[in-house]
Parts: sequence; structure tokens; C-alpha cells
Amino acid sequence: MLKECWKNVQDTTPLVHNITNYVTVNDVANVLLACGGSPIMSDEPEDVEDITAICGGLNINIGTLNRQSIEGMFRAGRKANELGHVVLLDPVGAGASGLRTETAGRLVEEIRFSVIRGNISEIKAIATGSASTRGVDANVEDAVTEENLPQAVAFAKKLAGKLSAVIAITGAIDIVADSQTAYVIRNGRPEMGRITGTGCQLSGLTTAYVVANPERPLEAAATAVALMGVAGEIGWENMLPGDGNSTYRNRIIDAIYNMDGDTLESRARLEKM
Amino acid sequence: MLKECWKNVQDTTPLVHNITNYVTVNDVANVLLACGGSPIMSDEPEDVEDITAICGGLNINIGTLNRQSIEGMFRAGRKANELGHVVLLDPVGAGASGLRTETAGRLVEEIRFSVIRGNISEIKAIATGSASTRGVDANVEDAVTEENLPQAVAFAKKLAGKLSAVIAITGAIDIVADSQTAYVIRNGRPEMGRITGTGCQLSGLTTAYVVANPERPLEAAATAVALMGVAGEIGWENMLPGDGNSTYRNRIIDAIYNMDGDTLESRARLEKM
Amino acid sequence: MLKECWKNVQDTTPLVHNITNYVTVNDVANVLLACGGSPIMSDEPEDVEDITAICGGLNINIGTLNRQSIEGMFRAGRKANELGHVVLLDPVGAGASGLRTETAGRLVEEIRFSVIRGNISEIKAIATGSASTRGVDANVEDAVTEENLPQAVAFAKKLAGKLSAVIAITGAIDIVADSQTAYVIRNGRPEMGRITGTGCQLSGLTTAYVVANPERPLEAAATAVALMGVAGEIGWENMLPGDGNSTYRNRIIDAIYNMDGDTLESRARLEKM
Repeated sequence: MLKECWKNVQDTTPLVHNITNYVTVNDVANVLLACGGSPIMSDEPEDVEDITAICGGLNINIGTLNRQSIEGMFRAGRKANELGHVVLLDPVGAGASGLRTETAGRLVEEIRFSVIRGNISEIKAIATGSASTRGVDANVEDAVTEENLPQAVAFAKKLAGKLSAVIAITGAIDIVADSQTAYVIRNGRPEMGRITGTGCQLSGLTTAYVVANPERPLEAAATAVALMGVAGEIGWENMLPGDGNSTYRNRIIDAIYNMDGDTLESRARLEKM
Repeated sequence: MLKECWKNVQDTTPLVHNITNYVTVNDVANVLLACGGSPIMSDEPEDVEDITAICGGLNINIGTLNRQSIEGMFRAGRKANELGHVVLLDPVGAGASGLRTETAGRLVEEIRFSVIRGNISEIKAIATGSASTRGVDANVEDAVTEENLPQAVAFAKKLAGKLSAVIAITGAIDIVADSQTAYVIRNGRPEMGRITGTGCQLSGLTTAYVVANPERPLEAAATAVALMGVAGEIGWENMLPGDGNSTYRNRIIDAIYNMDGDTLESRARLEKM
Repeated sequence: MLKECWKNVQDTTPLVHNITNYVTVNDVANVLLACGGSPIMSDEPEDVEDITAICGGLNINIGTLNRQSIEGMFRAGRKANELGHVVLLDPVGAGASGLRTETAGRLVEEIRFSVIRGNISEIKAIATGSASTRGVDANVEDAVTEENLPQAVAFAKKLAGKLSAVIAITGAIDIVADSQTAYVIRNGRPEMGRITGTGCQLSGLTTAYVVANPERPLEAAATAVALMGVAGEIGWENMLPGDGNSTYRNRIIDAIYNMDGDTLESRARLEKM
């Protein structure tokens, strides 16, 4: 499954329209190029409909939302829905501010998302319309652990059913679920949390994977999540003395660039639940 | 020629005002510092006139244009024209959306550009006022090849004459032309297309080179294009096992930082046509 | 002193709200993660009050200010003042444009800053309400040198007293002063000036350090300045053949990530004046 999903990305060069935050946008662009896709960025309301029309998917990330880009998100989202494109939501900081929580809520109400990807706090904010997020990190008490995994999986499936979307909750343990099936993924390194934007990058990757694998969005999203984790492991193995988080960021993207389907397949640690 | 153009940049530290997209802006700033120039960024309409007045050149890149920054482009452009400064246009995505095509068209009409640099699709969109661009990459059928090179050179010269600007069409084969003379440049690596922003970086570089070599904008622009290509080759030679596109980005900028005039002169592959 | 300040950051993970320019924002985020803090970015006026409320400190950088983000700076600043949070100002380009000089002036008038950090030209612009800045670099004639150090220290102390803020003037020789005491810091490398954003990164770092050391803002700020300089030295020692400014940027952040209190303490070169 992973190898095929990976190959479909290589073969089709999915073009992804990103309305994303200005903090990590360069890494999102480079990770899309690394994985075999192609990025284009645009958030101006007058520009987004034309741009999204020539793409296969749309990645909406509210990390540095503003009045104008919010308008852009809705216009691009509606257009992408109209065209039947893949649309992903990364609700960065939902639960941390009224504007973010409310914007994420309105987006989920008005736009049909193929995938929603965030940390557990953000996904809970989506589910409940409110939450307490410490910045963009999951509250520790909300972390997905081996102990609370069954409840977290049930929560993800239920939300997936409610929103007719694949739900990806990422953290130390990742969950990717539709209403029936969940993949639990145990790849990655804790040090990835010391780099800005690994979540944003994953949202870009996931969009590309779902675009290239339209018949199986759940498997495509799970593959993208596993790919990011495996790249985090390989990147870490390539660290040299003196390297820190800034170089680690490069090594992860480099690992995605150098990935092959067999390596991904053999290193991915997925459990179906 | 290349060595002298290179030396003039080292000796004068050209200060370049950039109104550029937020995707690749950090790399543009670092490449300007690497080449011996100095960058300043500002797109707020109320700020741009003062900023451009203290610079030697203005680099306008429409990659993530918005209503406000478009206003900034016109105000800065008019001021730079008034002061006789070098002004470069990078029409990212012209042809890909109505707003981009129209904005690029209006800019070319109202602002006097010293150089216009883009891929073949973007330059064709400038020439015709419409085109079909796949994102920001040139359509494959529009690529400049050894076969269609004479026609592409003729097109570039004609457009250069029409707009009284140096036209730089970059891709696998680069063309830098004024109305009379064209340089065809065959440096670079195909892997540069797997990094975001090599084109944006080149636009920054080119602005700096033309500022530092005011008597010969054609030669200065051709030198900048060759410099980017040579740096792409040296950067690639410096790649280590495990390196990918993210590290390659750093190695290219590093190669510009470490460039000397003799290396540039000896490795550049320019043909006058 | 330095070791304790460093340890307090490790122990408390200060969360810093940044309203900063889009040129260097990614590096600011990564340096905050590297030092043991946590970053969040938001400049939308409707969002900033909620975001700043959940943070410990606010870092305001006017490097790519626009009408909307200026409104965000004032709203966030007032909220942070109300909550007694640490607030730092980085007046990038004050003196270089009317809007920047005026905005910095109004900010200093209406917001209570814990720290103001800039180069000598920017700090002079703050002090006088006008100045001549060449882009964002200090005018050479205004550089702090061993010869004019006593006058520069006196100037910093006087301004610190006037604004009831720690004043950090950074350059080849750094001065960090309150109204009574100044630390002169002689760490760092001249090559740091060939990287975009080392100043912006330092402002992020300094905010985190002052948040984590609320009882001694002067010492915390001096430690952050020394940390940046020591990291610049270690990063330079780690440079390999072919490395240039782009890789140097990564190596500096990496050095902050790998810093320990003893190394910092032993390598810092502080003089109390």
C-alpha cells in the first residue's frame, strides 16, 4: 500500500495550492518538491480561485491567518469543492484564540474537507468548537498515549464520520482515521518537535498524497504520515556532531527527497485498528 | 566581462529593495548577502518610496501578490523610475491567473523595467497578455531547447526591443537579450528545479549585478544568470550522501558566497547570438 | 549569572509571541525552539490579544511592517502591558523610512517595553526620532568602537533611564544597559553580518531569556546577547570547506540547540561598565 501510494506521487507530480502561514511556507514548498509534487502559494482573494483551478489539491493552514487570507481560504475552498478537488485543513492554533477557533469552525461548516490534520488539541477544538491549546502544541494532558489510544482512535473515527473527512491526529503516536478504519503510526522522533513546521510540512505532503491517490484517501494520508515519520528517523540517523534543529530540518526534507518506496514500506510502522 | 561584473558587485555592495513573495524571501535575502550585495524588504505602500529611495535597485516579484503589495509595487516602481534606479520584474505565475497576468501587464505598461526575468511561459504571458502556465513552471511544450533556440532568441530580442528592457528567459537553457544581442547560457543543473526559489534568488542577484554595472545591463544580467548556474553546479559537486533538495539550496547559496571572479569566468558557458 | 539564566530558560520553556517580519520569521521560530523556548506567530489585530495572553512575552519587530500588522503591534503591546508581560521592540530600519521611524516612535510612546534591541542607527533613531540608516545596517560612522565605547555606553544608559527599558545595541561590540549598569560583550564573528536575520533571531532569544528570568532583565538580556555571539563563534568553528552564509545560518542555530551552561559561561566575554 505505502509503496504504491508513494509511486503514484512520483508518477503524477501533484500540484498543490497552499494557503499557509508565512513562518514555515518555504519548508512546505521544499517538502512538496522533495516528495515529487509541485507547490504554488497564493492567498489573495482575487487570485485564489484561478490558482486553485489549475491545481489538484488545496492545503489550507491557518497558522498566520489574517482578514484577507481568511477570505482567500473560503473563496479557494468553495472553488476547490466545486471542482471536486482534494482539500485539507490544518487548523494551527485552533483552541488558542477566538479567531482561530471560530475560523476553523466556520471552515469546517462551509467547506467540504477531504482531510483534517492537526495535533490532538487542535482536532479537539474542531470537534468541540473550543479547547485550551498551549500555543500550537498539544496540551500534555491531551497527548495520545498507549494508555488512552483506544479512546483517541474512537474519537478520531467518530469525528471522521461526523465530518465525512479523514482525520489525522499527529503527535508521538499518530492516528489517521475514517469512520470505519484507523491506522496507528509509530514512526518519527521526539526531536521533530524542536523544529518549526514539521506539522505544516506534513499537511502539504498529505495533500499531495491524497491528490495522487484519489481512490483511497485514508491510505494515502496514512502513507504521508508514515513518510514524514520515517524521514524524521532517517534524518536523525544522518545527524553529525554539532548538528542541531536547523540542520535536522534540512535532513528530514532531504530524506523525503531521497526516499524510495521499498524503504518507506519496510520502515513504516502501521497498525490497523 | 564576467569577472569585472562580479568585482563591481564586491566593490560597491549594491543595496536592493525587494518586494517579493513570502515563500522564498529568506533565500533571496541570503543570496543577496552571499553575492556581496545588501537586501532590504518592504511592501507596505506607505513605506516603499522611502525605502527604495535609499537603494540602488528595486526587485519586484509577484509570487504572492496581494492588493496591498500590488499598490506597493506601483508606488515603489514609479519612485525608482523617477530616481533612475534599476528596476527588475519577476512575473511569477503570469499566465496562471487573471490577477497575475493583469498585474504583470499593468506593471510593464506603467513602470520602466531595466530587466524582466522569468521562465518562458511567464515571459510569453508578458508578451501576449495571456498564456497557459502550469503553476510557476514553464509548460514543457514551451521549453527552450537546442531545436527551437533560434526562434526563442529572436522572440527575446524582439520583446527586449519592444519593452526597452533586458529580457532574461531562464530554464534548462537560459537566454539573456537586449534588442541587438543575446547571450545563451548553458550552466546549471536540472536538480535546481527541485528547490523552491532559485528563480526568485536569481532575480535578486540580477538586480544587484545591474545596479553595480550600470553601463552594461545586458552583460551584468548575463553574468548573474551564469553565476546562478555555476553555483548550481558547484553546489551539486559538494553534495554528500543523504543530501537532498533542502541542503542543495544551502550549498548553492554557499557557492555564491565562496565564488571568485576567475572561477566564474572559467566555468561560465556563454554563447553570444 | 549566564549559566543560571540559561538554565531558567531550559526549565521553563518560555512561550514567546512574535509579531515579526516575514523575511527571517522561520529562523526566529527555530532559534526559539533551539534555545529551549517555544514560538507562536500572529499579527492579525483580531488575533493578537488572545495569542499574547497565553504567552509569557511579546517580541515586536517592525522589519516588514504594514498597516494591519502595525495595528496588531499596538493591540498586542497594550494587552501584554496590561498583563505585565515582557515586551521587546526590535525597531528594524528605524531611521530608514518615515513610516518606520514614526511607528517605532509611537510604539515607544504608547507601549512600555522591557527591552529595546537594535543596531546603533536604529537605537539612535529611537532616541532622536530621526536618523540616517543605510537599510537595516548601522552607518559605519556610527559603529561602536573601542574608541567611542565610553560615549556609547553613556548614551545607552541615558536612554535606558529615559525609557525605563533595557537597551541592547548590537554590532561588532555589543552594549546591554539599564540606567545604572552596562554589559559590554565582545563575542561573535563579523561573518554574522553576511546572514540575514541574526539580529531578529537575537530579539526572539532575548525575549525568551527575559521571560524566564523576570527578576533580572538586564542580566537575562546580556546573557542572550552573549549566547548569540558564542553560538556565532562555535558555528564558525564548525564550518567545513565549501560552506558559506546559508550553512553558517544553520550552524549558529544548531550551536544554540547544543549549548550548555558551562560552555556559555566560559566562552562569554562580558565586561561590566
